[in-house]
Amino acid sequence: MDNRPIGVFDSGLGGITAVRELMRVMPTQPIIYFGDTGRVPYGGRSRETIVRYTRQDIRFLLTFDLKLIVAACGTMSANALDIVANEVDIPIVGVVESSVRRAIEETKNGRIGVIGTTATIKSGAYERLISALAPDAQVFSAACPLFVPLVENGRYSAGDVAVEAIASDYLKPLAQRDIDTLILGCTHYPLLRDVISGVMGPCVKLVDAGEACAVNAASLLRREDMLCDENSRGGCRFFVSDDPGNFSSIASVFLGCSVSDEIEQVDISSY
Amino acid sequence: MDNRPIGVFDSGLGGITAVRELMRVMPTQPIIYFGDTGRVPYGGRSRETIVRYTRQDIRFLLTFDLKLIVAACGTMSANALDIVANEVDIPIVGVVESSVRRAIEETKNGRIGVIGTTATIKSGAYERLISALAPDAQVFSAACPLFVPLVENGRYSAGDVAVEAIASDYLKPLAQRDIDTLILGCTHYPLLRDVISGVMGPCVKLVDAGEACAVNAASLLRREDMLCDENSRGGCRFFVSDDPGNFSSIASVFLGCSVSDEIEQVDISSY
Repeated sequence: MDNRPIGVFDSGLGGITAVRELMRVMPTQPIIYFGDTGRVPYGGRSRETIVRYTRQDIRFLLTFDLKLIVAACGTMSANALDIVANEVDIPIVGVVESSVRRAIEETKNGRIGVIGTTATIKSGAYERLISALAPDAQVFSAACPLFVPLVENGRYSAGDVAVEAIASDYLKPLAQRDIDTLILGCTHYPLLRDVISGVMGPCVKLVDAGEACAVNAASLLRREDMLCDENSRGGCRFFVSDDPGNFSSIASVFLGCSVSDEIEQVDISSY
Repeated sequence: MDNRPIGVFDSGLGGITAVRELMRVMPTQPIIYFGDTGRVPYGGRSRETIVRYTRQDIRFLLTFDLKLIVAACGTMSANALDIVANEVDIPIVGVVESSVRRAIEETKNGRIGVIGTTATIKSGAYERLISALAPDAQVFSAACPLFVPLVENGRYSAGDVAVEAIASDYLKPLAQRDIDTLILGCTHYPLLRDVISGVMGPCVKLVDAGEACAVNAASLLRREDMLCDENSRGGCRFFVSDDPGNFSSIASVFLGCSVSDEIEQVDISSY
């Protein structure tokens, strides 16, 4: 048993989809969340900048006594975790490995799609890991740079003409590749599930990166006998780098319930 | 005569529309440009964060011996210049004052529209200045939060279904207000001129913030006898806070010609 909190971080709000799943699979597990809302989005930035920001985000989280960190951001997982995870003493669960393992379990025809931010797709991290774990699988990827701004501005519903036109532009080439599994390689994308399914068709299984991370984190803790006991109180403390006021209303959309008033501001550039 | 450079800064790329106009009206004037590409966009951030970032941007520019600064960003001009301009010894020309003066000259019916980022519109800066300078004018404003990401992802052409649908959602309410002048309160928006005109109709005059800034800066320098002499070489040195490689190709779209290889990287959080 280990009642210490898990740290979860993201460039902004998307990682809250992982928090929601962590709360579902481990309801007594306390969580510390950091969202870098003062510098979001990371997905169009260079690898060097993403690594620098990731280091600072992790340094802040490590001011708490944590048992595990979840990098709930596709862009950081794909561009920085291979470098930064070695600098940290506790395990870090990332989006890439969690969702690749799930996709390999799910696929029947060995044809896997990956969508993510520009930096994520450019990194080639998904292709490398899939070909290491399932050498016969074929991978088809597409960058979807406008999905994060669309979601953060509340435009993710099926029937929204603009969202559907942009999704169609990004996903049509993938839909023609006969893939049976699509990794949503960014924790914002689960909110676009209906729109994405609309283009890909009902036979393509979508892998939700936040959910895959949560399941992966829980099984790692179970294996190491580090789950919380039943009397632990759970809950999530939120930290952000911009004004907490702007954060709470959109965060509630991601979490699916209202975010408590426990939101504090951090000067992340000082870490 | 004063051959010192002008400093121009923006949260990212939009301010280059002002550089283009400055080069047109003062071809021998040297320019130092800073774009905060490592933290762009500012338009959805809190006022406190925008003020902090603006101070750092200006502190970096002041490492050069400048005669004038152009804040070529609607979001910073509307949220931070009233505070930060008093802390600096040289004049700062901003987007708000430059475009408000132009709009008041242009309007025939005294009905002026303003579009900008969420932070710009929320600040109320345009309304305050218009009502101070033209008390009889009526102002109608609309936030257009997705315009910056659309432009930065190359989607600004008339005929793009997604861009036209989003523009129509944002602008239709303004188009019904019988305005005859519309301030493009963000230096990214001139690239959307055709799309915006398509919704507003041909009778609405569009005020380009970058152009208004350039004209304002030139007339201030002329008044103070601080223009460059004819033998000055002009040109622009570019500084950014993320990878210069990513910057140059998109910057060329804004500048309308290729950006020289004089692009250097700055750690802006250290200023």
